[in-house]
Formats: sequence, C-alpha cells, structure tokens
Amino acid sequence: MKNPLFVGLDVGGTTMKAGVVDNNGKLLASVSLATEAHRGQEPGLERMCEAIRLAVVAAGLTMKKIAAIGVATPGTMDIPAGIILDPPNLKPWRNVPVRSYVAKAFQLPTAFQNDGNAAALGEFWAGVGRDVHSLVLFTLGTGVGGGIILGDIVVQGEHSHGAELGHMKIEMTNPRQCGCGRWGCLEAYASATSVVKRAMEKLGQRGGAKSQLQAMVGKVDGLTAKDIFDVAQKGDILADKIVDEIALYLAIGAMNMMHIIDPDMVVFGGGMIKTGDWFLQRIKKYVSELAFPVPAERTKIVFAQLGSDAGFIGAAACGRQLLAMK
Amino acid sequence: MKNPLFVGLDVGGTTMKAGVVDNNGKLLASVSLATEAHRGQEPGLERMCEAIRLAVVAAGLTMKKIAAIGVATPGTMDIPAGIILDPPNLKPWRNVPVRSYVAKAFQLPTAFQNDGNAAALGEFWAGVGRDVHSLVLFTLGTGVGGGIILGDIVVQGEHSHGAELGHMKIEMTNPRQCGCGRWGCLEAYASATSVVKRAMEKLGQRGGAKSQLQAMVGKVDGLTAKDIFDVAQKGDILADKIVDEIALYLAIGAMNMMHIIDPDMVVFGGGMIKTGDWFLQRIKKYVSELAFPVPAERTKIVFAQLGSDAGFIGAAACGRQLLAMK
Repeated sequence: MKNPLFVGLDVGGTTMKAGVVDNNGKLLASVSLATEAHRGQEPGLERMCEAIRLAVVAAGLTMKKIAAIGVATPGTMDIPAGIILDPPNLKPWRNVPVRSYVAKAFQLPTAFQNDGNAAALGEFWAGVGRDVHSLVLFTLGTGVGGGIILGDIVVQGEHSHGAELGHMKIEMTNPRQCGCGRWGCLEAYASATSVVKRAMEKLGQRGGAKSQLQAMVGKVDGLTAKDIFDVAQKGDILADKIVDEIALYLAIGAMNMMHIIDPDMVVFGGGMIKTGDWFLQRIKKYVSELAFPVPAERTKIVFAQLGSDAGFIGAAACGRQLLAMK
Repeated sequence: MKNPLFVGLDVGGTTMKAGVVDNNGKLLASVSLATEAHRGQEPGLERMCEAIRLAVVAAGLTMKKIAAIGVATPGTMDIPAGIILDPPNLKPWRNVPVRSYVAKAFQLPTAFQNDGNAAALGEFWAGVGRDVHSLVLFTLGTGVGGGIILGDIVVQGEHSHGAELGHMKIEMTNPRQCGCGRWGCLEAYASATSVVKRAMEKLGQRGGAKSQLQAMVGKVDGLTAKDIFDVAQKGDILADKIVDEIALYLAIGAMNMMHIIDPDMVVFGGGMIKTGDWFLQRIKKYVSELAFPVPAERTKIVFAQLGSDAGFIGAAACGRQLLAMK
C-alpha cells in the first residue's frame, strides 16, 4: 500500500481518543468519546470500534484507506495475548479480548499496547523524541506511568510489566504508601494525587506557615495539583516547597533511569507539565546534581510535545510496526 | 568459517582472565594473569594481548583458528569508541584505546564492552540464562554492578552508562553515602564493602548484642563479608540480621528491575552468592512480598552459574555478535 494510513485508539478511564495518522506520524483527524466503562465491556468494545470509525470519517476517509490499527489501554494486561485483565480504571471490565475484537470488526492488522508504552512510542515517532535513538517517558497524572523505547523496540517486558516507572521504590526508611498498596514507590511522591496529599498534610500541621493554599481547600473541587503550581509561581513559600520536592522526586526517577537505561532523552508528560518551563528547569537542576557527570551533561531532559494525543499516535505507531515486521 | 572460535578477555583491577570458547559458548581453555595496572597502560595493553595469545596456546590452537575477539573492562568508558576513560580500578590508566590496540595486534574483528554487561551476556549465552529471552544481572562485589540483556541486545546505554545498577537510588530520608560519592545508591547497601561497614557500625553500638563477629574484627585481614555470612549460618543473631537486610536490599533492586525491565530472569553473581541457596531463598521471599503479583510469580530469581568466567565468556560473545551483525 502506498502512503499507508493508520488509526490509533487510546482508551482512558474517562474518555477514549482515536486518530488517523499518516506514515510519518502526521495527524489527519481525531475524535474523543466518553468511555463509560460502567456500562460493561461489550458496549465498551463496540464504543472502541465506533471511535475508530468516527476518526476515519473525521479524516474524510473510508476504512479501505487504513493499513493497520493500534489500541492502547491502561491497567493490568497481557500484551502478547491482546487482553486487558483487571483494569482498575475500567471497572467492571475483566479479561477483555480487545485486540481480537477490533481485528475481527475491521479485518485489519491490529496491535495492542499499554497506554504508557504507546505514549512513549508516540513521542519517539512523532513528538519530542523524533530525532533520538532511545527515550524514557514519565507520565504524570493521577498515577505515574511510563514507557521505554530503545531503537524501535518498546520495552513492554516479558510479563507486560515493563516501564511501570511509578513503581520503582525510592524510599525505605520512611516510605509513603502508594495507590498500588506498596510502600515507597515513586508514584507515592510524584503523582498529582500525592502532591495534593502532601500539601494537605503540610497545611494541617500545627504552627504551619501561612499559605494561599489554605483558602483553596474549601473549593468545590477541592485543592488540586494545578492550584499548588499556580500559587507556587506567585511566590507562596509552602507551595513552592512542595513543587521543589516534586522536582527532586522526578529527578530521582530520571536519574535512576539514566543509570539503568541511559537513554538519549528523558521525557515528562501529563497534566503537571502545563505549569511551564520553570518547573522543567527545577527538575534539570536536580538531575545535574544527582546523576553521573556524562549522562547528566548529555541526556536531554524535556517535556512531552503531543499532550493527550501521544497515546493514540503511539498506538497507531504500534499498528504501523506490525506491517514493518512483515 | 566453519565452527568459529572466539577469545574473550576480562580485565579486572587485580587479574585479567582470557578464554577460548566455541560457537556454543563452550569453554576450551582459559588463563589468568596479574593486571598490574600500576606499571602503566602500554604494558597493560601488551599484557592483554599476551593473555589472549596464552589462552589460544592453552587451547592447543593458533590465532588462525580464531574468528573474533572481545575485551571487557571496568570503569568509565566510551563503549562505541572502544576506549577506557578514567577507570578507578586501573590507575593510572587514562583514555586507553583498548579495542583498536587489540584489533591491530591480531588483525581480527574485536569487540569492547563494560565488564558487567559482558558478564550478563555470558550468563545469557552460556550460563544460567541460556533458555530465556531477557535477563538482568546484579554483580555483587566491592561494588554492585550489572548488565541487562533484552533478546540479543546488551543495554549498554547511549553514553556507556547502561545497567549501572548499583547506582539506582533506593533511599532518600536517611541515605548512606556510596563509593561513587552519591547518596542512597543500592551499592551503599548491598556491596560486600557496605555489608562489612554496617556490621562494624552495629558492633560499635553501645549496648549492642553479643556477636561472634566481635572476635573476628581483629583478624589480620579484618572482618569480611564472608565472615558475616558464615557466622549468620551458625545462628549468630546480629550477623543474621545483617544478612537479612542485604537480602531485602537486593530484593528491592530486583523488584525495581522487574517493574522497569520486567525480564524473564534476575540473576545475582559475585562472591556473595557462594554462601549458598539459603541466601537466595531469603532474597526470593522478599521479592515475592515486594513485587507486583504477576512478575513476582513468574520471574526467575537465580544465582549465576559461570562464576568469574562470565566476563570473558560474555566478552567472547560480544566478539561473536560482530560476525552475526555482518
């Protein structure tokens, strides 16, 4: 097929996004639908197919123009089997045969991948990592996810647990409990959820410093990580201290990956990076203090470029890899 | 060349070992020479060539039978350039063009690799990892080194810092200083040196428990990690506590790699594993408590098989890969 096109689909807990990209990773069109996992997995699978169809329509095309499909999902999974096992963000789904369902519906080569891994491949193929040979992505959201790309290889692991970067243990003496139930995981320190939790703790301490955050706790949606970053930028000392600690924790995560994988580039993605370059500079300052001199000097530490499109663009790249493998 | 043979050389701070292996990783003969780095790098390079020649003689062969050579060294290095930069264990060497020197001396394809990476490839090709697709090796000695093999790929990193597994940070609140000058590295907790250091601290504590170790501090060669393991096996409570902590630290290292790389197998090698299976069982117990259920259940946690031959056998495998790449 000349100038093949690909559809990628990224299924999240709240929304699913699908998009059509060309052979160079250029986005032609995308759509977003509510996931509504609570309606059950059969409607969920049908909705995935609908998102794929709608993206193709939005690009002014028919399915005949599509060479392959890729689907990325969160949660525990068996990547080679193409199955989501027991995804915490997609209750009550269990043992959902995503790849075979989509492949059968469209009669097209269909790839299946973890969403963090797909996002990393998206940034590698069409985003901030276009010109590098390898990268490690940290995705900062409710949790901390990730992906590792070496050459064209997605390090998905032998048991579909590769690049669970939020669950490296970085603290022993006084570990915080992580959402996964374990103790001392990076995620327990650097996710948006943990940032708010630490802020609430500090605000609750007797004799704690005055902070603009105190007035925000009573908001309808409660205190958010965004509030903390906003107020830190306005010079609030407590908020600034919290942000500085996040920068340190992320730098520890980056440094560990620089001493384990030693990639060309470490990328941070997710909502938290919207705060801007000043936060990146803080992370970089700590990385330069922590890591070995050569990787500290040469590894590019950057923010992601594709935003929430990275997942479906990377999923499309997984579909594209199926053809390249033939 | 039918039935090609390979020479591997592993240069250590004290001795260098060279061996001839066949195309299946079977060892034909090996030799060991004192490194004597203090005599300077020119004599060092000549001695490397001598070790290679002697290994071939020991195998009853001539260099004509050799298809490729691999050399592994410790220290900071530029792997693609084939140069040791500033190796702490090979003073006063600096910027030593190992690969080009050896390649020129023998007019043979010559590979160059970090010693931890080579040992991992050795175990993967001809040792405990023969039947797996991927493995992570921790080498436990004066320091903690390592290697990562994914498929046939050695994860050497973009700046020759891949698999510096001793320098992942596992502690923030109360970090020990590592030999590298950083704080909280795995090596500061799990190397043989750090084990002795912790024992000495515990023995020096006021009101510390009685221990058989107290009598061993005055030995000519001082207290060793081996003493601590020996005494722990005899039921000494303090020594047993120290060994149990080492098992926990190594399990944390293993778990982190299971959540980052998710290999088929995690291998521990080096002097410390001579203590035997009871120590492996301790590590496995902690891994099963710490890691995610699927990798905890399925990842093989094992001791290395090749002992101090792993480095040169892996170096030979690197030489062999040069031919496979053509």
